[in-house]
Amino acid sequence: MADKDEEMVVTPWEVRGKIDYDRLIELFGTQRIDQRLRERIYKAAGEKHFLLERGLFFSHRDLDWLLDEYAKGHPFFIYTGRGPSGQVHIGHLIPWMFTKWLKDRFKTRLYFQLTNDEKFFFEECMTIEEVRHYTYENSLDLLALGFEPETTFLIDDIKHIDLLYELGVQVAKKVTFSTAKAVYGFENSMNIGGIWYPALQAVPAFLHSWIVGKNVPCLIPCAIDQDPHWRVTRDVADKLGYYKPASIQNKFVPGLGEGGKMSSSDPMSAIFTTDKPKLARKKVMNAFTGGRATAEEQRRLGANPDVCSVFKYYSFIFMPDDRELADIDQKCRSGAILCGECKQILAPRMVEFLERHQAAREEMKDRVDEFSAARLRDEVRR
Amino acid sequence: MADKDEEMVVTPWEVRGKIDYDRLIELFGTQRIDQRLRERIYKAAGEKHFLLERGLFFSHRDLDWLLDEYAKGHPFFIYTGRGPSGQVHIGHLIPWMFTKWLKDRFKTRLYFQLTNDEKFFFEECMTIEEVRHYTYENSLDLLALGFEPETTFLIDDIKHIDLLYELGVQVAKKVTFSTAKAVYGFENSMNIGGIWYPALQAVPAFLHSWIVGKNVPCLIPCAIDQDPHWRVTRDVADKLGYYKPASIQNKFVPGLGEGGKMSSSDPMSAIFTTDKPKLARKKVMNAFTGGRATAEEQRRLGANPDVCSVFKYYSFIFMPDDRELADIDQKCRSGAILCGECKQILAPRMVEFLERHQAAREEMKDRVDEFSAARLRDEVRR
Repeated sequence: MADKDEEMVVTPWEVRGKIDYDRLIELFGTQRIDQRLRERIYKAAGEKHFLLERGLFFSHRDLDWLLDEYAKGHPFFIYTGRGPSGQVHIGHLIPWMFTKWLKDRFKTRLYFQLTNDEKFFFEECMTIEEVRHYTYENSLDLLALGFEPETTFLIDDIKHIDLLYELGVQVAKKVTFSTAKAVYGFENSMNIGGIWYPALQAVPAFLHSWIVGKNVPCLIPCAIDQDPHWRVTRDVADKLGYYKPASIQNKFVPGLGEGGKMSSSDPMSAIFTTDKPKLARKKVMNAFTGGRATAEEQRRLGANPDVCSVFKYYSFIFMPDDRELADIDQKCRSGAILCGECKQILAPRMVEFLERHQAAREEMKDRVDEFSAARLRDEVRR
Repeated sequence: MADKDEEMVVTPWEVRGKIDYDRLIELFGTQRIDQRLRERIYKAAGEKHFLLERGLFFSHRDLDWLLDEYAKGHPFFIYTGRGPSGQVHIGHLIPWMFTKWLKDRFKTRLYFQLTNDEKFFFEECMTIEEVRHYTYENSLDLLALGFEPETTFLIDDIKHIDLLYELGVQVAKKVTFSTAKAVYGFENSMNIGGIWYPALQAVPAFLHSWIVGKNVPCLIPCAIDQDPHWRVTRDVADKLGYYKPASIQNKFVPGLGEGGKMSSSDPMSAIFTTDKPKLARKKVMNAFTGGRATAEEQRRLGANPDVCSVFKYYSFIFMPDDRELADIDQKCRSGAILCGECKQILAPRMVEFLERHQAAREEMKDRVDEFSAARLRDEVRR
């Protein structure tokens, strides 16, 4: 759980302090997603999306340009990814579900990078075997969301390095240690793998263009903490003659405790996709809420959904319907519902979701290879 | 040409100043090859070698240990390589010919790394296409020396990165930027590819052991300027549980001008393997010698073969026969032969060597793939 009084630090490898998203937009130099842009996305997509509507995706780079290109008949591809250092929790799935919506609505390819080399470099005690294990485990979670193999390519950094290295060396040559130090805060104690790694995270933004031999726009849906990577990637794009990737950025998905983002390192703060339903229910029942000290007080004064982790689950995944969400919000603020009752609404939805997800996940166990980026080798050779 | 008064600087990427080999042994912490060790090598190899006898290979690490292991019936493999940033000159061939002798006498495998990523990172203006071109061109020169495909594996860093990366990330995790800065003199302006690269140069020292799944000793014949790499490699070997590679190190092969090493960047200082015989003859006739100002003076006082580039060609390649070399040495010192006459002995040998080499090189043009490290993929899978 983040200490609210601590200074805000947001890098791809560390998020702490009280997060001020307005200041992040300013610091990182991204753009806010405003109502005009939201409408533009909805129009192009053919429908609204509640995660845009509710502000989880709040910031972007070059989305207008991307939609201009799309309107001119120039399709884009989507690139996102995951550092496989542990099991996936519900918070990870939310941006992936949004990614799937984008992919389906805009009929794009998805390049999904599993940065096992990164996790190996940055996590002191992590072994190759462990990152490999989580690469597989995390792939199951992504694929359980229903992506199509024809247009979905899982890039395993270590396994598919042959597809990435030639572009990687070109990126790396354009980035000095001074730049990496300034952008990522690297110290001299950083290992030389960690210093090299940002080059590889840039690669999938150019990979499709490199494969097809012409510039194709790229959209990166991701959490705002990854933005330093895209600043470097965009800078290098210019130098290598590729389009700068556009991005659409989300806030951190809150955990079940007070404040902070859902974190794999605190097991009770997050519901993992592999949690037994009984444990998930228990975590829901223990979740931090905006309730009052006593039931009597809450009936009288109402509670505060703005700080409630249960309410955030509703907002970002379990109540896409605006009327239903407004209704629970009103009941909460008015004291018409107590936190225990409210959690009894969330718990069965969580359990049902997990059961469905776990069944889908199970089905993908023999099918991961169908999504392998290894298939791109044939496209490169053509 | 090196400035003799300049401070000595020897790194894998820069050699300047007057080279003091005794001081290098001390600075780098290597061992001198003495008569006892020479005899031991000859005994194990079954014959003498003039490049050891004449001190071109003068320094080593762990050769006694390697020979102990060999005597116990534990064979070793050989690893060396080349940074393909230009055409190969005669000076490059000399250690490769010695490598071939070692390989033949000790019946080993050879892993030969073509570090095209390194050259791309370290040479500002070099393109991927150029390093790829020289990778192929330089391979022809190596193979023209008569290596057998069954036991010779050409590793093209970019093309065969899939064979190297998993070991590379393990090495890289054990080397901090501080270490790289101290060992290689990297500045903050170094690009992040160049910083990463030393990890990849370490990999072939472990590759064979990794492939066969047990520790196998490794011998690296190389020029002394590469020693910083082996210091890092040996340090990491311990941490990863591999044997520290042994090495046998040569002095810089002198150029045709005064002092310095033969350099690809000064075309007249070196005879390239692709030089037309006529040009090679011209270069020989223009070579720097230890002669006197006038013929009369030289007849009277004799010349100095110790500083003569023609004499070095005799020593290191064209006069393996000790009596012949002693004879020319005596004639030179006594004034019995003038430099022009002496060059007339070298020129036809050089031309004949080049013609033979160029014919062999031509024959290898369709055969490079037979030597590809790509074949190791099958061994890795087994």
